[in-house]
Amino acid sequence: MIDNLTHPSKQNLIPQITVDCVIFGYENKKLKVLITKLDFEGDFWALPSGFVNQEDDIDDAAHKVLQFRTGLENIYLQQFGTFGKAGRNNMAFLDKLIELNKKNLVESDLIQADYNWFSKRFIAIGYYALVDISKVNPQKSNLDQAIEWHEVDALPEMILDHQKIVEVALKILRSHVNEKINAFNLLPDTFTMREVQEVYEAICNRTFVRTNFQKMILELNVLERLEKKFTGASNKAPYLYRFKQ
Amino acid sequence: MIDNLTHPSKQNLIPQITVDCVIFGYENKKLKVLITKLDFEGDFWALPSGFVNQEDDIDDAAHKVLQFRTGLENIYLQQFGTFGKAGRNNMAFLDKLIELNKKNLVESDLIQADYNWFSKRFIAIGYYALVDISKVNPQKSNLDQAIEWHEVDALPEMILDHQKIVEVALKILRSHVNEKINAFNLLPDTFTMREVQEVYEAICNRTFVRTNFQKMILELNVLERLEKKFTGASNKAPYLYRFKQ
Repeated sequence: MIDNLTHPSKQNLIPQITVDCVIFGYENKKLKVLITKLDFEGDFWALPSGFVNQEDDIDDAAHKVLQFRTGLENIYLQQFGTFGKAGRNNMAFLDKLIELNKKNLVESDLIQADYNWFSKRFIAIGYYALVDISKVNPQKSNLDQAIEWHEVDALPEMILDHQKIVEVALKILRSHVNEKINAFNLLPDTFTMREVQEVYEAICNRTFVRTNFQKMILELNVLERLEKKFTGASNKAPYLYRFKQ
Repeated sequence: MIDNLTHPSKQNLIPQITVDCVIFGYENKKLKVLITKLDFEGDFWALPSGFVNQEDDIDDAAHKVLQFRTGLENIYLQQFGTFGKAGRNNMAFLDKLIELNKKNLVESDLIQADYNWFSKRFIAIGYYALVDISKVNPQKSNLDQAIEWHEVDALPEMILDHQKIVEVALKILRSHVNEKINAFNLLPDTFTMREVQEVYEAICNRTFVRTNFQKMILELNVLERLEKKFTGASNKAPYLYRFKQ
């Protein structure tokens, strides 16, 4: 992927538009989000995002961000909202950056060359993605100091309205869980019913009664039952399931 | 409202972005959409839309379109999706226009002055609105030949992907009817339970059993029961209801 954030020419990009990606993963019974720490003095955390090439669908632009950040193709992706408040611009962020980075401003291509581009109000098209966290190899861009998974309810302060974008993504994900039956994208290829319940509980932030939950899930008719999981105590071994494509 | 479609300067507008509005009304047991016929030779029907001023929230831009087109303020409005396929540009439309309008091309300010602006790919942020059709006074812009209500399942062919945008809006409206309890925005201030059932049936394109439907609606606890509607046969008069704000 061309890292278009630092591409010398913005000629081929649609101005004032970004695609911002809320990449959800699931680990240790917690829902997590993949976020980056920008490589400037100061704590600037942000959602992975990108611009839109003139010749790309907006969905393509989001796929490129995801593929670059995770190393995965064919990621489950949903557009969930577009954020375009008038006050939504990078001025404050850029001004803070300039102040903090006075000493190395000369080396900062980003600030010098692109201030006019970046200081405009951007409209962000929000996408959420659901990934099997064990398959992801998080990838920094050359603007990042770090890229890390953080629990969705313990995120550091983020730039612009990125915190709000995550909140909206989570709210929409919750409403999609039953409608789109998409939570299985957070699990490995095979899983136990208990693991399904735990991922639903992490997303919905509530508990379910085991028997009712199992009945509800099986009635969806989206799971294929495989052999029992070998645990050593075969009489108590749970069944493994796979999501039917 | 400044009719920014024909504003001489585009300096203050965000390029390559429109807000496209699917304005739903309800009449004679049918769900309808307010669409415009563009004032060019040929049948060009379109959704009411507008650009985004640099200093406006995208929601403000949608409100301005709605207020201009309906004469109403405080309209119920929901952003429901953003449409940005790479092939989504006006070139074909403009070329057809130019061909059809050869004879009066000189007078056509739009085509001459703004070809470069309009021929780019636009990303459309979709909003749907729900209005009491009896209160609307549909308003043409100076680009329109006509503005009319059309039944949602009998729309004329529309430019670009406007047909698709209506289909997505309707699908999302259906999923919102229970979640957001917003169908009452299509009704007058007071209504009978039968009228509520009919508007739900028009939106969802299905019938409901009267007793079950009434029970479901009353359990939402969003209606205030008023005096009986006077029909002349007072013993059979239905109750009137009002939506609690």
